[in-house]
This record gives sequence, structure tokens and C-alpha cells, in this order.
Amino acid sequence: MSLFQKHEAILNKAIEALHSRIFFAAFPEHPAPAIYGETADADAQTKFKNQLGKKFEELKQTNSVSWGGQEESPYTQEALNISYPIFSVDTLINNSKKAFHQWRKILAQERAGILLESLDRAKKRFFEIAYATMHTTGQGYMMAFQASGPHAADRALEAIAAGYEELNRFPAHALWDKPMGKFNIQLNKEWRAVPKGISLVIGCSTFPTWNSVTGIYGSLMTGNSVLVKPHPGAILPIAIFVAEIQNVLAENNLDPNTCQLAVDTFDKMITKELAEHADVKLIDYTGNSAFGSYLEALPGKVVFTEKTGVNSVILDSVEDVDKAAANLAFSVNLYSGQMCTAPQNFYIPADGINSPAGKISFDDFAQKFVAQINGLVDNPKAGPFVLGAIQNKKTNERVVEAEKLPGKVVLKSKHIENPQFKNARTATPVVVEIDSNKKEVFSKELFGPIALLIKTKNTDESISLAQEMAMKHGAISCAAYTTDNSVKEKIADEMALAATPVSFNLIGGIYMNQNAAFSDFHVTGGNPAGNASFTNPEYVTKRFTWVGHREPVKG
Amino acid sequence: MSLFQKHEAILNKAIEALHSRIFFAAFPEHPAPAIYGETADADAQTKFKNQLGKKFEELKQTNSVSWGGQEESPYTQEALNISYPIFSVDTLINNSKKAFHQWRKILAQERAGILLESLDRAKKRFFEIAYATMHTTGQGYMMAFQASGPHAADRALEAIAAGYEELNRFPAHALWDKPMGKFNIQLNKEWRAVPKGISLVIGCSTFPTWNSVTGIYGSLMTGNSVLVKPHPGAILPIAIFVAEIQNVLAENNLDPNTCQLAVDTFDKMITKELAEHADVKLIDYTGNSAFGSYLEALPGKVVFTEKTGVNSVILDSVEDVDKAAANLAFSVNLYSGQMCTAPQNFYIPADGINSPAGKISFDDFAQKFVAQINGLVDNPKAGPFVLGAIQNKKTNERVVEAEKLPGKVVLKSKHIENPQFKNARTATPVVVEIDSNKKEVFSKELFGPIALLIKTKNTDESISLAQEMAMKHGAISCAAYTTDNSVKEKIADEMALAATPVSFNLIGGIYMNQNAAFSDFHVTGGNPAGNASFTNPEYVTKRFTWVGHREPVKG
Repeated sequence: MSLFQKHEAILNKAIEALHSRIFFAAFPEHPAPAIYGETADADAQTKFKNQLGKKFEELKQTNSVSWGGQEESPYTQEALNISYPIFSVDTLINNSKKAFHQWRKILAQERAGILLESLDRAKKRFFEIAYATMHTTGQGYMMAFQASGPHAADRALEAIAAGYEELNRFPAHALWDKPMGKFNIQLNKEWRAVPKGISLVIGCSTFPTWNSVTGIYGSLMTGNSVLVKPHPGAILPIAIFVAEIQNVLAENNLDPNTCQLAVDTFDKMITKELAEHADVKLIDYTGNSAFGSYLEALPGKVVFTEKTGVNSVILDSVEDVDKAAANLAFSVNLYSGQMCTAPQNFYIPADGINSPAGKISFDDFAQKFVAQINGLVDNPKAGPFVLGAIQNKKTNERVVEAEKLPGKVVLKSKHIENPQFKNARTATPVVVEIDSNKKEVFSKELFGPIALLIKTKNTDESISLAQEMAMKHGAISCAAYTTDNSVKEKIADEMALAATPVSFNLIGGIYMNQNAAFSDFHVTGGNPAGNASFTNPEYVTKRFTWVGHREPVKG
Repeated sequence: MSLFQKHEAILNKAIEALHSRIFFAAFPEHPAPAIYGETADADAQTKFKNQLGKKFEELKQTNSVSWGGQEESPYTQEALNISYPIFSVDTLINNSKKAFHQWRKILAQERAGILLESLDRAKKRFFEIAYATMHTTGQGYMMAFQASGPHAADRALEAIAAGYEELNRFPAHALWDKPMGKFNIQLNKEWRAVPKGISLVIGCSTFPTWNSVTGIYGSLMTGNSVLVKPHPGAILPIAIFVAEIQNVLAENNLDPNTCQLAVDTFDKMITKELAEHADVKLIDYTGNSAFGSYLEALPGKVVFTEKTGVNSVILDSVEDVDKAAANLAFSVNLYSGQMCTAPQNFYIPADGINSPAGKISFDDFAQKFVAQINGLVDNPKAGPFVLGAIQNKKTNERVVEAEKLPGKVVLKSKHIENPQFKNARTATPVVVEIDSNKKEVFSKELFGPIALLIKTKNTDESISLAQEMAMKHGAISCAAYTTDNSVKEKIADEMALAATPVSFNLIGGIYMNQNAAFSDFHVTGGNPAGNASFTNPEYVTKRFTWVGHREPVKG
């Protein structure tokens, strides 16, 4: 049985799910022993600990010029001391060019089989990837497992499915038979999906696999060779994925350099050199807007970006204010606001929020929101695990700075203890009340656990500001609470024009931060928060070119 | 019966053809009285003559600031003296913004119905459009009819079909039902295809409808409002299309400003002002590379370009050299080489071309090619009609300059008489032999009836040069003659990597210049000749954004 046949059923289900957009997940998100094995977690923990201080020797790439690595755990604030092989840009490019001409000629089915098999292999290492993620990103255990393991693998599968479908969108051959009156012109035509070339995937420090695998698998599926340039602070999680891809390639007598890891260090970054290289045709990027915009402007490249945004919450009217406040408090606390989908700007009318029990004043809502944050943060069985740790020291500085914003500090940030890691770098949310006329304060992303309660004239102003922020500065998510259908449609319409998806009236165990593979387009590509979307058709069609050849049928 | 119901069958056929890519045409290409009506041609000729020297008053746009128009017939070399209403940029933009918010809310079916009806109306005016095209572009009658009428309408239908399909690609609503163990999370989700805004379609002087209607109809189908900025030298053909779109809009109580004609004059061009306007989100452009690249680099716009290219012919081996030479001679003569798909660089090995009758030397082929050109050009019943007239005086200058290229002039250009128009601006092809080491000579587009016979070391060098030209300078078409299957696959592969479609071994009544709607992707988008393709999925998906909203199912 070929690898394609082995995985064909799941591929077909994935393609179906892409279209129906109903719930689908190929990789169980619960780290249950019954699913992943009784000893999987403990074994992975041991394996992770054994990797610390050592060389990562799983890659099949050769001719490294040195070894390096500067990862540090936000939980221990100590270096992981894992070193990775470092290659010259020339070596990476030359290897990739060579591999490209082999890989591009492989049938789409064969490519799909190899890629799906690599996900199956990665599945066996989800716990390892989880520990690697915790100790590079600061994510809590559960998020680290889910986001970097099953959710990332589902996103990868989604990109494979979308790519596979597009490659089969047009026929390989057709007979074109044109009646000309007395005779017919007959041409044999053929269409080739021609991959662009070398694809560079630039990772980020907070979601090192989730944000990178779509680009990696999307490019590989469509026949491109890939250079994975991880963030120097978060290498190990994606290194494991790359190693498993290389394993499957090698086992199938294909060049493992089809997907190379291109590690660099903070003191000698190679991202620009790679991005500007004439042979690099595709670039996937997650990170800050300045660098993303630089990449987008590079001539002759197809660039997919997820940059920064200013996510809004519009509070108009609620069924149950406590449930709404609890849901939003969780969204702010989750991974300490270090998600690109976390809310920042909460627009609340000065005269309060409508509810069945009457108006809830601005201050009352602020107090309820703060109480919900505190309830979670101060619960030692929940707080440390939901908040995780702060990936980057600068985020802590930003949180401290936020207390000096021109508004009223409703809740100060504080450090909380993590029972497992006494050195964990933590910061609870800071909440600041800001007047809606202080637009300069809330017109930019304040990355981290920072929530701004913005006092607006009314819901119309709230909507208008949320739309303006999204259009001018980008937005990846938006939450809105309203019990009024006409207000709801207005929000839906105005935010749609700003290319921002809205989660309405979320309560309970589902949060605006969450975007599910096969259903939620992550980033729409339609506002400054990014020009690409996981995974719409363009996300894969831009990775190759349809070229048609033709020849008269021989008479 | 709604307009959608009226045209639904043809739309469905068009969508099917898009996928099967077998022959399909909705609009008959033959100007036969039996199809288009016994008096259609004569009536149109009268109508065209009556329009000369008058105001074009068919548009439903108001508040013009002046009237102007500088079209000139390449057949009479006299001004048409037709004047069009001219509007301020502010008026155009404000009208378009207003119309956008009505048009975007119309159902896709309703939009499709209106657009298909407008094509049906345009069909009744194909002969008028043909005369308008002849006397602005210089195309011969048959090409003017086919390219600006039925072929353009088929391309428009193709864009409508592609857009309609993509708008229906994802469900409007779905129930997302995620099992969480003890309970399910249920969300009602909805997806909206949100148009980008104002779309600017910039026309060219040689194919004023064929190259513009795809952008116009692609943008309108996906909910954008459109500004049609014709080339100041070729307004009337597309003005008739716009008038018919406005008629159907008005009859259906929709704002005719949904599609506006934005005429300017050579002395006061408004293209840049429109393109750079913040409210213009989409730009379609056909024309020179310098302006195309300027447009592509505009930040915050989605830009579709067809620019210039250097099209190659690779001659390796032939079944019948005379048939090959005749086919290529026709391609060079057709509309005097003023097609973006016309061949320019003919790569011929120094030691000749293989054939069943033995080697055909470089010089022998050159003589056969020249003889075929002369045979057509000097045939008074064919030459003037195939060549048409020269649109732009600069093309004549370029043809004269070509005789000074550093090579041997194998055939000089000359003027031929047109029996119907004694003042016609004509120029027959100039053919120059160039050595392959004179790369600077043939590394650019020499627009017009200019053919370079390039003497190469061998077919490998021919392929390598053709690929290099396409990769560096762009190419829209390529012809190759080879009877060797391994050479054929090499050409197919190398030119595919340069994103250039190859027509192999064409003889008889089909030419490399021709690209058929529903089957041939016109321009691939994968080399410098343009970043877009008629009509691949990206051509329409980039005109709107998928935005998904969601809300918990009420318990």
C-alpha cells in the first residue's frame, strides 16, 4: 500500500470539511493517555530533558558550518542550551534548488502521501513538541500540547487538502475540439501546475509550529522546496516537525533537503539574506508589522503575512453580563494575552450596557470584568496554567508601561507564582480605562496582557472605532455582545467591510481567541493584520502557476 | 422570470467548461447574417458613421465637467471627433462609493443575471463594436469583430462564471458542532464574500474590450463597483459595453454608477490620480511594463497586470517546413504583430532544422519564412485584411529602426495599400537575422511587425534563451516545432518553469497568437509579462475577502 493509499481517506475527509466547514479534526486535541498512550507524556518529558544542553542531531542536513542555539525557557528563565546545525545561506539555497527539481516532478498523490505520513509521525511526538513549546513560548501545558500538536497538525492537513484539491482543479489533459464549419480544429491540451521554487517560512516566537506548518505543508504539497527559518527563540518544536518530514523523505528515497531547517542566532540573523535571495520565490511570515511590510514590498516574491492587529470587543447589550465578563476575562488571561487573536480594545458606551436586568454602568462592567480576571488569576489551580509565562521580557516592560497610559488603571498587573516553576516569568493582565477621544493610545497593538476599556459615546461610536482600527491597523478577531438584531447586523456588516470576523455573544467554553482548522479562516487577508488566510484557496494557488501546452491532434 | 433564471443555463455551461477546459463558446465568432441578422452589419456601419463627430450620449452618468475625446482612425488617419463626458476624479470616486454600498448587498445570483443580460445586449451591438474597434485599434474587420465582440464576451462570461463559482465555494451558513466529551459546543457560523471596494480597470489601445471586460465583469460579479478608464485612443468600443451595463442596471432600479466610464484625454490623463486614490482597492491594467510595475508596487492595492513580453519560437525539427513557415508567417502578419501573443524571437540552430527530407539550413528556412510572409502580404485579397493598420505611429518608427539592428535584414518592411482606406497606416513585417550572442538586441519587446531570426548553436541554446527571456523579460506565448519527443518534453518542462505556455507544431488554421476563453489561460501570472491570468481562480478570489462570523446556538 502506498503512503497515499494509507492516508487517502483522511485526505478526502479533510477536503470535504474544507467545503462544508462543519467541525472536523483529524488529530485529537485532548492529551489523553487512552489516545496517545499511557507513557507518552512521561516518555516525552524525559526525552525533552535529555535533549537539554545537547546537540539536536535528528536532521539529515549535512555540511553545517557551526552549531548554535539561544533558546531560553520562560518558565525557568534559563538557557535550554540545545544547539542546532547552522548552514551558510549558499548551502541552504543550493540544497534547496537541487531538491526542488526532484520534488516538483513527484506526483501530487505521492507528495500528499509523504506529507500525511510525516504528520502521523509528528503525532507520536506531540508531547515532546508540547514540552518544547512550553519551554520556548511560555504557553501553558494544555495550550502547548493542543496548539503545537493536534491543532497545528490539523492546520497542516488543511493546507495539504487545499493544495491537493487545487492541483487537481483542472485536468491534466483535454481534447479541445472546435467546430469551424467544414472541419474541426482539434488540439491536445495539457495543463501543468508549476511550483514557484524555493519557499521560505519564517517562524515566530509564540506559536512556532501552528503559525509555520501551514506555509510549510502548503508549499511542499504544491511542489516547492522549503526552508524553515524558525525564530531563534523557538526552534525545537518546529525542528521536530522538520526532522519527521526529512525522515519520511529519506525513507522514500527522496532528498531530505526538500525541507530544510535554517537555524540562525540573534547575533547573526539570516532572514533578510534568505528573503532577498533571487531563488526564494515564496515567503511565509508571522511577526511584527514593520518586517512583514518590508517582506510584502520585496519585488518578485509571493509573500504571505500574518502581522499585528488591534482586536476589538464591542459591548452593546448582554443576556448575562457575568457570563460575558467571564468569557472575556478568560480571553485576556489565556496565554497572558500573547495570542494574535486576543482582545485589546473593549468599547463600552459611557451610559452602560443594556441587559434584561437594566443598564449595567461602565464602572459596573469594569468591576465585573476585573473580578472575573482576578477570580481566574488568583485561583492557584487555574491561573498559572491558563496564563502560562511571558515569552519575551519586553512584554513585561510593556505591561508596566501600560499603567502610565493616560487613563485610569482599573487593575494593575502583578506577578503570580507557578507551583511547578518558581522562576516563571509571569504577568497578570493590566486593565486601563481610556476615553474614546484618546485614539492615539489605542490605535496600536499593545502585545501582551493589556486590556483597554474605552468609554464611547454609544455603540455606533464603538462600531466605528472598531472598524477604523481594523481598517487602518489591522485586526484578526473581534467579539461583540448584543441582543439587538439590527445592531448585530450592523456590526457584522461594518466589521466584514474591515475584513474582520466577529464572534457574537460568546459565553462558556469557547473564546474569541480560538480559530478552528477547516472552519475558521485565520486572518482574512483583507486588512493590515496580514495578506493571507489559513486556508483559503489563494493560500495555496499562489504557490504554483498553471501553464497549458497544446498541440494539434495528428490526423 | 428573473434575469438570473433567463441566463442560468449558459452560466452553468460556462462553469462546466471552466473545469473541463474543452471547447466552449457562448457567442458565435462568425459574423454571419444568419446568426446576427441580415442587416446587422450595415445598420452598425451606419450607426458608427452617425456617431462620428458627435457626443456619445448613451451613458447614464451625470455632472460631467466637460466633453472630450481624441480618438483617431488608423485607417483614415483622421480624428473620429467623438466626444465623451469627462468627470472629476472626485465625482467618479464619490459616485462609485455610493454605488458600491448598494451593489455589494445584491445577491450573487442577481448580479450574475444583470451582467449576463448586459452581455446579451452587447451581443446585439457586436458589429458596432467591431467598427469602433477597427477605427481605434487598426485591427482588420474580422479580428475587430471577433476579438472585441464574441471573444471578449466569452472572456467576460468566463470571469462571471469563475466569480460566481468562487462566491459559492463556501457555505453561507453552517452549524459547527464540536464534541467536548460531556457536552458539545455548537456555533452558528456564517461566511460573507466581502468585495474589496472600488475597482479601476485601465484599458489599452490595441484590445480595448478583450483586455478590459474580464476585469470589469470579474470585479462586478464579486460585488465591486468599477471605474473603466479606457486608453484615450480607444474609447468607443468599451464605451458601448459600459453603456449596456448601465442600461441593465438602470432598468433594474440599480445605480448605473456601479460601472462608470472614466474618460480622459492625452493632455490630462487621470490614471495615476485614480490608481493612487485611497478608495481604489483593485486595479486591472494592460499596457507597458514600466507603468504596470509602478501599479504593482502601489501599497494597499490588489493589482492585476498584463505587461509586455518577449515571445519565442523554438525551431528544432519539423514534419513539413512549408506548413510551419506558413503558420508562423501568419502569426507575424496577423494585426501587424500588434498582439501581445505575437512571436518575436525565432531561435534556429546554425546548422539548421531537422526534417524527414533532411536538414533545412538556417538560410533556407529564412527564405521560406520570408516567402510565406510575402505571399500573404502581397495577396490583395488577404494581406490588407490580415495586417490591418498600425495603431500607433511609434510602431512605424520602431519598424524602421529595426532595419538598423546589428544583423542582416532578411526582409524589409513596406507600406501596402488597403483597398478600402487609401490613407491606412500600414507596415508589413521586417525580418532581421541576429546572432545569439547579441542578447541585448533581442532581450526586449519590439512591439509591432518585427521578427528576429536568431542563430543559435543548437536547440539546447534555443531553449535556454527562450526560457531566460521569459523569466527575465516575460513571455505570454511560445511556439515550438519538434518531432523529437524528448526535445518536446524538455521544451515543455523548461518553458513551464518560465510560466510560458507552448504551442507545439501548429500548422493550418490555428495560431500561437490565439488564446481561447474557457480553455487557454491567457498570461500565466508567473513571469514578468503579468501577474494575473484570464481566468484562473485567483483572478476572481483576490477581488473579495472571505469573512466568517459565529455565535453560539441558543440552548
